[in-house]
Amino acid sequence: MDQAAIRKILDDTKAGRLSVDMALKRLQHLPYEDISFAKIDHHRHLRQGVPEVIFAAGKTEAQVIRIARAMYKKSGSFLITKATGRIYKSLKMKSAVYHPESGVISLGGEKRKSGNIVILTAGTSDIPAADEAAVTASFLGSAVTTIYDVGVAGLHRLMDRRELLKEAKVIIVAAGMEGALPSVVGGMTDRPIIAVPTSAGYGTSFGGLTALFAMLNSCVPGIAVMNIDNGFGAGCLAHRINSIR
Amino acid sequence: MDQAAIRKILDDTKAGRLSVDMALKRLQHLPYEDISFAKIDHHRHLRQGVPEVIFAAGKTEAQVIRIARAMYKKSGSFLITKATGRIYKSLKMKSAVYHPESGVISLGGEKRKSGNIVILTAGTSDIPAADEAAVTASFLGSAVTTIYDVGVAGLHRLMDRRELLKEAKVIIVAAGMEGALPSVVGGMTDRPIIAVPTSAGYGTSFGGLTALFAMLNSCVPGIAVMNIDNGFGAGCLAHRINSIR
Amino acid sequence: MDQAAIRKILDDTKAGRLSVDMALKRLQHLPYEDISFAKIDHHRHLRQGVPEVIFAAGKTEAQVIRIARAMYKKSGSFLITKATGRIYKSLKMKSAVYHPESGVISLGGEKRKSGNIVILTAGTSDIPAADEAAVTASFLGSAVTTIYDVGVAGLHRLMDRRELLKEAKVIIVAAGMEGALPSVVGGMTDRPIIAVPTSAGYGTSFGGLTALFAMLNSCVPGIAVMNIDNGFGAGCLAHRINSIR
Amino acid sequence: MDQAAIRKILDDTKAGRLSVDMALKRLQHLPYEDISFAKIDHHRHLRQGVPEVIFAAGKTEAQVIRIARAMYKKSGSFLITKATGRIYKSLKMKSAVYHPESGVISLGGEKRKSGNIVILTAGTSDIPAADEAAVTASFLGSAVTTIYDVGVAGLHRLMDRRELLKEAKVIIVAAGMEGALPSVVGGMTDRPIIAVPTSAGYGTSFGGLTALFAMLNSCVPGIAVMNIDNGFGAGCLAHRINSIR
Amino acid sequence: MDQAAIRKILDDTKAGRLSVDMALKRLQHLPYEDISFAKIDHHRHLRQGVPEVIFAAGKTEAQVIRIARAMYKKSGSFLITKATGRIYKSLKMKSAVYHPESGVISLGGEKRKSGNIVILTAGTSDIPAADEAAVTASFLGSAVTTIYDVGVAGLHRLMDRRELLKEAKVIIVAAGMEGALPSVVGGMTDRPIIAVPTSAGYGTSFGGLTALFAMLNSCVPGIAVMNIDNGFGAGCLAHRINSIR
Amino acid sequence: MDQAAIRKILDDTKAGRLSVDMALKRLQHLPYEDISFAKIDHHRHLRQGVPEVIFAAGKTEAQVIRIARAMYKKSGSFLITKATGRIYKSLKMKSAVYHPESGVISLGGEKRKSGNIVILTAGTSDIPAADEAAVTASFLGSAVTTIYDVGVAGLHRLMDRRELLKEAKVIIVAAGMEGALPSVVGGMTDRPIIAVPTSAGYGTSFGGLTALFAMLNSCVPGIAVMNIDNGFGAGCLAHRINSIR
Amino acid sequence: MDQAAIRKILDDTKAGRLSVDMALKRLQHLPYEDISFAKIDHHRHLRQGVPEVIFAAGKTEAQVIRIARAMYKKSGSFLITKATGRIYKSLKMKSAVYHPESGVISLGGEKRKSGNIVILTAGTSDIPAADEAAVTASFLGSAVTTIYDVGVAGLHRLMDRRELLKEAKVIIVAAGMEGALPSVVGGMTDRPIIAVPTSAGYGTSFGGLTALFAMLNSCVPGIAVMNIDNGFGAGCLAHRINSIR
Amino acid sequence: MDQAAIRKILDDTKAGRLSVDMALKRLQHLPYEDISFAKIDHHRHLRQGVPEVIFAAGKTEAQVIRIARAMYKKSGSFLITKATGRIYKSLKMKSAVYHPESGVISLGGEKRKSGNIVILTAGTSDIPAADEAAVTASFLGSAVTTIYDVGVAGLHRLMDRRELLKEAKVIIVAAGMEGALPSVVGGMTDRPIIAVPTSAGYGTSFGGLTALFAMLNSCVPGIAVMNIDNGFGAGCLAHRINSIR
Repeated sequence: MDQAAIRKILDDTKAGRLSVDMALKRLQHLPYEDISFAKIDHHRHLRQGVPEVIFAAGKTEAQVIRIARAMYKKSGSFLITKATGRIYKSLKMKSAVYHPESGVISLGGEKRKSGNIVILTAGTSDIPAADEAAVTASFLGSAVTTIYDVGVAGLHRLMDRRELLKEAKVIIVAAGMEGALPSVVGGMTDRPIIAVPTSAGYGTSFGGLTALFAMLNSCVPGIAVMNIDNGFGAGCLAHRINSIR
Repeated sequence: MDQAAIRKILDDTKAGRLSVDMALKRLQHLPYEDISFAKIDHHRHLRQGVPEVIFAAGKTEAQVIRIARAMYKKSGSFLITKATGRIYKSLKMKSAVYHPESGVISLGGEKRKSGNIVILTAGTSDIPAADEAAVTASFLGSAVTTIYDVGVAGLHRLMDRRELLKEAKVIIVAAGMEGALPSVVGGMTDRPIIAVPTSAGYGTSFGGLTALFAMLNSCVPGIAVMNIDNGFGAGCLAHRINSIR
Repeated sequence: MDQAAIRKILDDTKAGRLSVDMALKRLQHLPYEDISFAKIDHHRHLRQGVPEVIFAAGKTEAQVIRIARAMYKKSGSFLITKATGRIYKSLKMKSAVYHPESGVISLGGEKRKSGNIVILTAGTSDIPAADEAAVTASFLGSAVTTIYDVGVAGLHRLMDRRELLKEAKVIIVAAGMEGALPSVVGGMTDRPIIAVPTSAGYGTSFGGLTALFAMLNSCVPGIAVMNIDNGFGAGCLAHRINSIR
Repeated sequence: MDQAAIRKILDDTKAGRLSVDMALKRLQHLPYEDISFAKIDHHRHLRQGVPEVIFAAGKTEAQVIRIARAMYKKSGSFLITKATGRIYKSLKMKSAVYHPESGVISLGGEKRKSGNIVILTAGTSDIPAADEAAVTASFLGSAVTTIYDVGVAGLHRLMDRRELLKEAKVIIVAAGMEGALPSVVGGMTDRPIIAVPTSAGYGTSFGGLTALFAMLNSCVPGIAVMNIDNGFGAGCLAHRINSIR
Repeated sequence: MDQAAIRKILDDTKAGRLSVDMALKRLQHLPYEDISFAKIDHHRHLRQGVPEVIFAAGKTEAQVIRIARAMYKKSGSFLITKATGRIYKSLKMKSAVYHPESGVISLGGEKRKSGNIVILTAGTSDIPAADEAAVTASFLGSAVTTIYDVGVAGLHRLMDRRELLKEAKVIIVAAGMEGALPSVVGGMTDRPIIAVPTSAGYGTSFGGLTALFAMLNSCVPGIAVMNIDNGFGAGCLAHRINSIR
Repeated sequence: MDQAAIRKILDDTKAGRLSVDMALKRLQHLPYEDISFAKIDHHRHLRQGVPEVIFAAGKTEAQVIRIARAMYKKSGSFLITKATGRIYKSLKMKSAVYHPESGVISLGGEKRKSGNIVILTAGTSDIPAADEAAVTASFLGSAVTTIYDVGVAGLHRLMDRRELLKEAKVIIVAAGMEGALPSVVGGMTDRPIIAVPTSAGYGTSFGGLTALFAMLNSCVPGIAVMNIDNGFGAGCLAHRINSIR
Repeated sequence: MDQAAIRKILDDTKAGRLSVDMALKRLQHLPYEDISFAKIDHHRHLRQGVPEVIFAAGKTEAQVIRIARAMYKKSGSFLITKATGRIYKSLKMKSAVYHPESGVISLGGEKRKSGNIVILTAGTSDIPAADEAAVTASFLGSAVTTIYDVGVAGLHRLMDRRELLKEAKVIIVAAGMEGALPSVVGGMTDRPIIAVPTSAGYGTSFGGLTALFAMLNSCVPGIAVMNIDNGFGAGCLAHRINSIR
Repeated sequence: MDQAAIRKILDDTKAGRLSVDMALKRLQHLPYEDISFAKIDHHRHLRQGVPEVIFAAGKTEAQVIRIARAMYKKSGSFLITKATGRIYKSLKMKSAVYHPESGVISLGGEKRKSGNIVILTAGTSDIPAADEAAVTASFLGSAVTTIYDVGVAGLHRLMDRRELLKEAKVIIVAAGMEGALPSVVGGMTDRPIIAVPTSAGYGTSFGGLTALFAMLNSCVPGIAVMNIDNGFGAGCLAHRINSIR
């Protein structure tokens, strides 16, 4: 249930198509739905600008599917992150789309895309996080451009795309290993930058921790940092910023 | 040297008040000034939307003052972070202002303030980081509102200020200890939120590390996280977002 | 062998139904039973208010079953934590109950439930720890109420249950990720609160460490913290407190 | 403002000594007082069973004193933790008491002491945390018994005091280094045990972290663990438990 | 090739049964054997009192077997640690013995056992490390007594065995979780104590790190600490001490 | 495309066999090839002395093969690290070689070997990293000598090879566990030493972290340290040094 | 009160010089003395072979002196570790000796020295820990030989002292930085080796943690490891081993 | 005593100016000098290409001076790192030079400088480490060029100096915070690169640990990494490489 739906209720009420009591009932309709092991927060979109999203990793397959169906019934759309092809098959919903690179399942979402979010990766191994961000932001209604594999070991690959950066309203940079790309990009633009450390690497990459700390210590001030591999969060934040008028 | 100055050069050129050669010279004027131990990056404002700022902590008093004077000569303004009252005295510049709560010294800065950045702290001990963010964002040209000491142990203090949150274009939340305030604020708004972990606390607060990780793991998606006590970075990011049109 | 059994021996002795020598023998009966690789501590209930419990994770299937049978013979009841469905099948004891959400196997336990322990979780992924606590406390004789999925991203879900909190004698809160729920609950009640960090999350959740440290640093004073995923310990402590008269 | 004060308002109202409007006004009186850099939470006692306490470590001397005076005016009592003799002198309040071993300053507090909290330390170096717990619990209205320097290297010292443990309603154990004392005490009693790791030790004691983790991993189930050196929190929790009827 | 063999060469030389040249040749016989990927150190027993032992974990099955055979050829005995039943089967050597609890494979070893090493465990899950120590020390020629499952949660189990401790020349204590048992044992004896932290536990036991640090911080001075799960090292050290005359 | 190829273009131009325009085109030919998910950096050899290498661990099998083929087409050679036998089979390229000990796949590479790199390991378990270094350096054109299993527990094994060390131009030392070998070797030579910590060991070896830190703290000054198990990096650095004239 | 004193009581009893009742009284004389903030454990020597020792670091000057005097009165000797020259002056006891390199104060102690403990350091900065071990072991009655500054960067310095190692009954090795010396010494002897990591070094020496972990991972099996800078513990353990007959 | 001195002895012997016995004696002259608390390793230069250097941080002022004088007497030169102005004054040696930026004291050293080492810093705060490297390498006989304050936030500052990089034989890069500069430099050159992480930064820079790990994880293969702030080690390694012919 998004802002448009709310506005419709209010418009209908104003126009006399809906009684005040009925409108109240619809609006006051419990903001979450209790399905015993989960309280689905249908009003979250209204409060936070982002609907409740199903994080599949910590749940059983049965729980994920039951929550997804309850959401679909209410709002006609949902987003599942850190899912698997197996969950997708068990869902048995034709209109759902499975994004294999990030393991996201989406159904519905905002159709009109606006603004411009540019998403960069340092290497090929950072694509899962970047794709999760891209699918999320697009689902929420943001236009997205992706540029992959432009890490600092060969800076000319990035320089060639300099024009694309200028057109961005906000930039997401996903990088593992030493996590240096956000600093370099940050030195080239005045746009807000969201850095996503990824778990690409081995040994002292510590599953992304080194990239995370490098990003938090960037010599370019004002880079927003996300949790490791949290493309979903980056997509949400980019959309929040991209939606500012 | 900011965008307005550049535009003026271009306008003057177009209007014939400045020869192309002269304009070129001014523009190509070395983007940084070499004072041997430091290369001052006068064009940074142009590229990154934020001028180069003097981080005093790792420098000798003499270095800080020499860089500050070089900046003042070129641009008529500067910002020094993590400074001390002693440095302020040695500077001997009347128009410079010392902000004792955060240790920032500012001179000049943008006069017209626009947009609206709301800055919250969980406790009294988080004020230094919040003040650094406030002074920075204000210096860059953003309007700032501060609400201090509204932590989660007494949520009603925050609830009373709910209206102020709605008017924010972007929100900064500084918190130490368990770092829970950004999650609670994030559940109440659709604005971009910038979380600044502070070193307030003791024992397993690990000098802010616990708050940092708590913020990175927020169950509210899309919270931008900064380095510990990095109010300056939060001010820069907030200003970048606040400047989006 | 619990306090009631001891009292019976003493009563029988006083009433002449048991000779002093015989009573002594029964009481002095080795407080633990040596089955070579394990010394079962049958008197632990008497000393600590909680019987010895079988922690299955570090033991072979054969060891777990052999200890469970020895306990059953002596006391007619046992509790096995971190067990699997496979162990349950191999046990082949009809009256034993397998709790799939937490992997606990219970047989017998106190029938009269008293007091009131309220158990909350922040999300669906925290249920295993919460269920372990619930089964344990109930086995020991405490009445238990559970409220799941009321995390801080949608505080209204918790506010709706405020009345239930008031009726609690002690409250258990299980949360992963940023571990903020205990602080918020702690700000609403004067009851003892037991916080259980869970391993739900990824990246810098560090398998529950972030939630653990956040809880230890709560700005609400006096929150009891348990090891990660240690629902069993929370159940024991809650029962100890719930049993105070 | 504690429960007794509230009850008095209600009684006065019932008895006609106070109009309903007046009572409402008193009760609704802003639950916190805004002194700009701090919002004092006068109703916290009512909600959490523990009044707001001033944690001096992160505040300037001037802030601590200003908050303490505001509290004194409202409630006639206050508690300041991690304070110094210097703050005590600057306070210039005759009735305030300075506890040098823990650095606590107290004024007023509950006069009737009830229940029984026993506080143990492993060594002499653990006394500061234990004393902070003792002063806090006593201030809140709990009777307290202390037994210091009974660590596991000489267990007979503890065995001699076994009777005192039996009379406790709740037990606090402060220990640094390997943090083993709570496990040994926990094996001897069925009372709730609150373990406070202290920063006593050097090298791999990691300022109390080793003791903290040892306590979280106790083989005795159901030990409540506090942050390092957090005697104040232990005192609050012990009082919460000690107050259960 | 052990000291006895060396002495025989020298005796034979003295007695004229062996020419000096021949003796020299035998003694100078390369102290290690080069089998290309490994240099087997046959003289290590002579230098260090402990023969080279095959640590199977980091090697391929083929490597382990090839080294074992080369050792067997030279010295008639070997010890393989962290091995598996599969390696044992592939070895196809009748006289080799597989110890399933610790995964050690032994063949030969010293037949006369002397001295007395007592090995304790806190719980059943600590037996693998204890068994590795027992097999190792016994292989090297030490007499060994084991007492398992006598952790601090039920100290009477240990008290009952007090007499056995008095007869020990050196004591090994294996414990996971909070690792408190060595401190308690250390308080009861003047024998050298070797503490082996084990990986038994979960959450903040950090795979044995908490027990390790607790042992290093024991309030009983002079406890020798080993790497996590390093029963082999404990067996070697105990044997070195047990061999002192 | 290496320096020889560039030189040929320039020679051909000078000799009139190639027009300046054509030469320019060939040289300006995009320095990387865009295959959508990867930008292959064909000029890297020219810039960095080492061609772009395929790190297989973070990529899908299909991605690895597609990049390898693109590289083969352009330069007639490639190197894949952290690969598997399965990838090798799927590649279906006869001239490619699979190095099972390190999991490297190589095709082509420099034929003339020059200089002399000596590679040592402390134990058998360190061979994978050493072999990766050996294959890499050899591929790049360096002559390589390997000496395995000469750790500090039996220093005579190293002493016997002292002559080989003297002939080295640069030395690589791979060691896990306590990582002491580089210090000992460093005390015996004036050649540059590259230390590769390996993940061999268990418990507090922390997957190679202990060896890494030991190497960084060597009392012999000037030892170059690599990431854990990074034989590839060691091979590259050794080749860079070995190529200095 | 040491074993000799006990034996005297028993001899006197046997010889009729002391009544059984009187002997019992003397022996049963409280095993510790209660001076309120400390329980001095006078029987510890009897139980553990080492008397209770005063660890000054965590205590006030007044506490240290009061405990030292109580010990002196009972046993005529004491040992204070991690003390300062200032404490020594305040003690005002002529017969006490201050050891400035380790900060130990000793008075009395065993006069007959027996056995042979050899103590090595890698560098000059490791002497404080080594001296603490030497003073402790000597106080307890062991003969001690010290060899300082023989680290692995110049192994010939150690080789020259090889004969001294052979005469040792037990060897203590103190080393900071990479902590490699115990492994090298361990490869040369069959004596028990006690490794003391020291906090010498900087950066990733982590105040001794790197040396500690290196020692725990020694490729030489059976090295006893102590806490960082714990020369006292090493002295106690060495004496326990040195006292074995 | 350096190689030239040795060669002279050999030449004199060959020419008959020195008897073989006398030559042997001079050469065999004890390779270290025993001044009781330190064994000065005068032959180290011969073995390792770098003379023994005095690391002042862990030593008393008196020790430093005594060792420096002993070295001066033997070789006429010395180098002291991590020293202070105070030590310099106490030395009272006119020809010694104090380098205030790095705290190095040097006397003598190689006069002919050869090769070319280029040393870069990311910021002004990284100069101490860079200066230590420069002084060390110069002392050993390498020619050095320094370029300071060219970090990744303003890459054009580095681009301007590209020509200088091409002329380097080996490059040292000192950087704190996110440590990204070595990767960017590494992408522009085929020279060996030595990365020195510095402790510049705050919060999650962890005193240089973040920069260290970032450098170890560089996406440019073959970067040599040093301990934090270890400019001395970088200078030694650079000189070792720079000396290769």
